[in-house]
Amino acid sequence: MPDTSLGFLGLGVMGGPMARNLIKAGYAVTGFDTDRGRLGRFAAAGGKAVPSAAEVGGASEIVFLSLPTGDVVRQVVTGEGGLTAVMRSGLVIVDLSTTEAKVAQDAAAACAPRGITFLDAPVSGGEQGAIDATLSIMAGGDAAAFARCKPILSVIGRSVVHMGGSGMGQAAKLINNLIVAAGFAAVCEGWALAVKAGLDPATLHEAIKGGWAGSRVMEETIPRLLKRDFVPGGTVDIMTKDVGYALNMARTLDLPVPVTALVHELFRMAKAQGKGPKAQPVLITLWEEWTGIQVGGSKA
Amino acid sequence: MPDTSLGFLGLGVMGGPMARNLIKAGYAVTGFDTDRGRLGRFAAAGGKAVPSAAEVGGASEIVFLSLPTGDVVRQVVTGEGGLTAVMRSGLVIVDLSTTEAKVAQDAAAACAPRGITFLDAPVSGGEQGAIDATLSIMAGGDAAAFARCKPILSVIGRSVVHMGGSGMGQAAKLINNLIVAAGFAAVCEGWALAVKAGLDPATLHEAIKGGWAGSRVMEETIPRLLKRDFVPGGTVDIMTKDVGYALNMARTLDLPVPVTALVHELFRMAKAQGKGPKAQPVLITLWEEWTGIQVGGSKA
Repeated sequence: MPDTSLGFLGLGVMGGPMARNLIKAGYAVTGFDTDRGRLGRFAAAGGKAVPSAAEVGGASEIVFLSLPTGDVVRQVVTGEGGLTAVMRSGLVIVDLSTTEAKVAQDAAAACAPRGITFLDAPVSGGEQGAIDATLSIMAGGDAAAFARCKPILSVIGRSVVHMGGSGMGQAAKLINNLIVAAGFAAVCEGWALAVKAGLDPATLHEAIKGGWAGSRVMEETIPRLLKRDFVPGGTVDIMTKDVGYALNMARTLDLPVPVTALVHELFRMAKAQGKGPKAQPVLITLWEEWTGIQVGGSKA
Repeated sequence: MPDTSLGFLGLGVMGGPMARNLIKAGYAVTGFDTDRGRLGRFAAAGGKAVPSAAEVGGASEIVFLSLPTGDVVRQVVTGEGGLTAVMRSGLVIVDLSTTEAKVAQDAAAACAPRGITFLDAPVSGGEQGAIDATLSIMAGGDAAAFARCKPILSVIGRSVVHMGGSGMGQAAKLINNLIVAAGFAAVCEGWALAVKAGLDPATLHEAIKGGWAGSRVMEETIPRLLKRDFVPGGTVDIMTKDVGYALNMARTLDLPVPVTALVHELFRMAKAQGKGPKAQPVLITLWEEWTGIQVGGSKA
């Protein structure tokens, strides 16, 4: 058994399978989640379930976070009873959540005086990537701490890249997601226009997928559109949050980002229509509702 | 030698190599171009060069067009001395140019009373695809004429798909190109934001290219951005035209297309800054000029 004691906070759709992959690799993992069902499944998989984040921090040399928002990360790291109060000097926090560069930079600055190193290491690849351990992991922060954690991150991800200083993992992930979101919007708009013009949506896919328009997003979107499969995977809520973070970053940097701003509004429109919990390809229903056309399948 | 006599009008960047591939396959090809240099290269490759479009029409069972705009196609097909005046009944015109569904539908309607069949068959894959005969060809129009032409189209393209009735090839190509254009815009904006945020552009590519953000457009764009290689391939001028055609189609169909409209404006902005003749990744210079950052290479 590898001799580094690990902690895991947040055992949900992403955190659950990542923690299980670390257990399978032989690590002793101490975990906590506010949801008792998740915590029970973690224990059943061989993890040591404890009743608080503080106990995870006290028992671990490296603590992984997989949490829903930057606010929750701030709370867990520097809030009352947070990790900085209980972890010893020399220990490492690896935040696998998608937040903002500023959250990572603030957390790293708050950890440093206590001798704790905070790495941002958001992941891309979705629930299936977490289950299959094929995630792409983009890390920011201290290079020596990254080198120490890289073999462990390589257990849960296929690509593990150090992007630069604190926050640079988050910056890379947000840019990844804004490109993904723009891809979803372009593919949905294109297919709505195609069907409105009289094209068959499956034939169009066959004709263009191997050419310059081809993309991973197209391969993930079109089969789902044709089956009207809008079950998560990644949701409109999550994409709206991430593209919003990218927009905040651009505003902070005074960089005009017209594509990002428009795509954010489109995802917000889908969210306003009650589609937040559905998978990203549900964006197609915007165009469908505007014009009464339907792209594939039976009516959603 | 295959016994169908072919004609070719427009022997430029795309038409030149397509005509040469037909000659190499053993077809007798009669060709014309207003540019004497192109016509000379066609003759040197084994084509029969003639001094007018009408002579091509008179000598050929199937005439291929590879022309710069829909207006030129209209002129060559139905204008004074155009093909409809000289071609015999039973013959076929195959328009490989990218125009608009309406151009194809009008041309097909003008050809029909004379017993001439007009197919729209725009190609995707660029100059290199034309040279390598790896183009994707999206055809619209009469199914029997398509079946007759498909073996010949398969000489110049790798994927040859019948999309539906007249104009549906053009509709498919325009949707292909609007997705490509949106991809260029998102990748350029994303990389500009990345560099402004402090990321290394080559490391970002390495980290995200294998994940959900991955696309053919990214693979075509990033290496060129890093080398600041803005030599055509496909130009900003061509993309502005094609996305404009897609926008016209959506307006005719009363379908709101916010992504297409924004991307058209971005390409028009690049064109207004004198970048029309350069390759599409030159779009990055919009963001560079707004903020004084530079993505890769030495100053353009």
